[in-house]
Amino acid sequence: MRAEIITIGDELLIGQVVDTNSAWMAQRLNECGIEVLQVTSVHDERNHIVQALNDALSRADIVLTTGGLGPTKDDITKHVLCEYFRMKLVESSQVKAHIERLYASRPQVLNKLTATQWMIPNGATILPNRVGSAPIMVFPMRTKTLICLPGVPYEMEIAMTEQVLPFLRQRHPSLGTIEHRTIMVSGIPESSLAIMLAEYEASLPQGLRLAYLPKDGVIRLRLSSDGQVPVQTLEEWIDQLQFVVHNYLIVTDDRPLEVHVADALNAHRATLATAESCTGGKLAALLTKHSGSSSYFRGSVIAYSNDVKRDVLGIPEYDLQRYGAVSEQVVRWMAEGVRRITHSDYAIATSGIAGPTGGSAEKPVGTVWIGWATPNGTDATCFQLGKLREQVTDRACQKALIGLLERIR
Amino acid sequence: MRAEIITIGDELLIGQVVDTNSAWMAQRLNECGIEVLQVTSVHDERNHIVQALNDALSRADIVLTTGGLGPTKDDITKHVLCEYFRMKLVESSQVKAHIERLYASRPQVLNKLTATQWMIPNGATILPNRVGSAPIMVFPMRTKTLICLPGVPYEMEIAMTEQVLPFLRQRHPSLGTIEHRTIMVSGIPESSLAIMLAEYEASLPQGLRLAYLPKDGVIRLRLSSDGQVPVQTLEEWIDQLQFVVHNYLIVTDDRPLEVHVADALNAHRATLATAESCTGGKLAALLTKHSGSSSYFRGSVIAYSNDVKRDVLGIPEYDLQRYGAVSEQVVRWMAEGVRRITHSDYAIATSGIAGPTGGSAEKPVGTVWIGWATPNGTDATCFQLGKLREQVTDRACQKALIGLLERIR
Repeated sequence: MRAEIITIGDELLIGQVVDTNSAWMAQRLNECGIEVLQVTSVHDERNHIVQALNDALSRADIVLTTGGLGPTKDDITKHVLCEYFRMKLVESSQVKAHIERLYASRPQVLNKLTATQWMIPNGATILPNRVGSAPIMVFPMRTKTLICLPGVPYEMEIAMTEQVLPFLRQRHPSLGTIEHRTIMVSGIPESSLAIMLAEYEASLPQGLRLAYLPKDGVIRLRLSSDGQVPVQTLEEWIDQLQFVVHNYLIVTDDRPLEVHVADALNAHRATLATAESCTGGKLAALLTKHSGSSSYFRGSVIAYSNDVKRDVLGIPEYDLQRYGAVSEQVVRWMAEGVRRITHSDYAIATSGIAGPTGGSAEKPVGTVWIGWATPNGTDATCFQLGKLREQVTDRACQKALIGLLERIR
Repeated sequence: MRAEIITIGDELLIGQVVDTNSAWMAQRLNECGIEVLQVTSVHDERNHIVQALNDALSRADIVLTTGGLGPTKDDITKHVLCEYFRMKLVESSQVKAHIERLYASRPQVLNKLTATQWMIPNGATILPNRVGSAPIMVFPMRTKTLICLPGVPYEMEIAMTEQVLPFLRQRHPSLGTIEHRTIMVSGIPESSLAIMLAEYEASLPQGLRLAYLPKDGVIRLRLSSDGQVPVQTLEEWIDQLQFVVHNYLIVTDDRPLEVHVADALNAHRATLATAESCTGGKLAALLTKHSGSSSYFRGSVIAYSNDVKRDVLGIPEYDLQRYGAVSEQVVRWMAEGVRRITHSDYAIATSGIAGPTGGSAEKPVGTVWIGWATPNGTDATCFQLGKLREQVTDRACQKALIGLLERIR
């Protein structure tokens, strides 16, 4: 079963909004064994939408669109689809009742533009949109399925999970499964890893495929089966892969490192705090992104200025002056300081030169000291993490989490 | 001048990686007056790449591809292009010298896989890739231009800025300009805004177009001209737009709110700190994402646990018990506490129920108290920011920044 995704909206093509929808949808479709052939982003423009629909329907069994379903003038998807299928817009009492219920619990007043949202193509099947007023429309075709979803990410996600995927499973009971297994490695360049794995890759059976996905200093190795290879075989080859790269292996699945950290801390009923300078709160934000983080995460001190390092974390002025903020001594003090004032079991500290300014010959941009304070003592490591601000801070967060995992295990 | 972007990689179509490249590229191309017609994501698969190339070249003057240029087996873009243009791979001594120089300053050793990177399609023009080993290839066509870029975002960005855009400007000296002007409003639902703007929109002259881009509780209104309308006319209509929505207007350009906050604080030589509970460091990370933030940002206390609120921020245990952490009293204490201990002029505090758990009838998921402590006093406001964790925390950051801007001005 093959699908395509068409994301509709001028904002995508002038680069004002990054399309996060299609990656999310592709993941969910893959889990159901639906391969995504292509993602296409097009303008809010009639001919362009029609052409993309024709192309996608010529290749795929299922076509999903997102976007262009709002009540404003620039949103034309519903009207284009009406024309495409020669349907008329008619009032849906079911959708009207839903939108009225939705607005009853909101501070806003239901106005005449919102009222256009219950005008529905006559002949389309409407799936309920629990959290918004845009209709989720299924267009009846002989063997294929075309479904239009709203473009607001959380509306789309709820619609996919609660409505679209169950609908597709019901309509196509034979859905197979593409299987993926992923492991993460770190501390080796991609090309050296590829040489290490050359023999392994050459001996992979038909239907198994290995991909390298480097990001933020971590390389994900993903082994995929086309659905013809038994899961057992996939598992055997992933075991073999782990064996070959075991010196660089960090974790054996695709969950983010901060989730592994949460599991490890919860398993030990241990708590964590961070003291961040160059990462500026990014590490804390990463940890607290996930619900349930309050079970192990106590808090952070973002010590951006030296005054805060001294006054809140208790770092001696002498060390700040003598060694500088980006130093082994200071990052150790930071980790120990935040561990002490938050009464945590573990603490991570970061201090570095994120750039683009502030580098020197001795401490160039990308120099980051990371310290870990644990019940067994404190230590720190210096990393060179690249030249670009975002890259440096993202990589520092990953290095900090990898180091913590190693120290908890 | 019209362009299309083709992003190549299985990881995009199984949803493991979000394609941020095409939005970034589209912005840059738009700035040069190049309209992006379509973005297409395809698999690392020969026939699929060829089909996408044919389609894009039939519509656009310029086609840019990203991805599939790495040294590993899954990267096939270079080989497909060789076949497409009937070229052969030959060793480029220029690229070889560049890669050898690049590796001389790296800890890694140059291995035989990396060596395949200096094999170049015979007849392609190579633009230098300052920061990586993947070649930037320009394929000569009669009237059109096809350019292949690496998929790693920072490599692509440097290649676009330093090589590809100057190359395109040189090859197409007649490049026009599509102009966009954007303003941001908040505190009004999209559909009410559209009704307020109905007359304005109806009277827009040919060639001007208004778009609504809602995100995190802020709506961007973007007025675009197709290049035929004089800039002066666009400016007049954006002035008119500001007048119509002035009750809800926050800022009059498209720069992120934290950049406006930075400007406002720097103009007053004032400093800022944050005390974050539900936003968990996201607000600090947003502020420190931008270089130069150390001029006004002193630091934060992420007070996730009540102990940290009490011990680090000095909030009375009595108030925590009596009012709860999500309350006006506590968020005011948090703002004042972090302002005091970091010696800042301004402070923002957040405390709320980000969900999905922790809500109650009295304080449902999405309830967020935000407090601002300023040289003129402290106040706080309660918001209802939705039902989804990420949505709640993203919106809370935007509300916090809007509130701060209002209090500085």
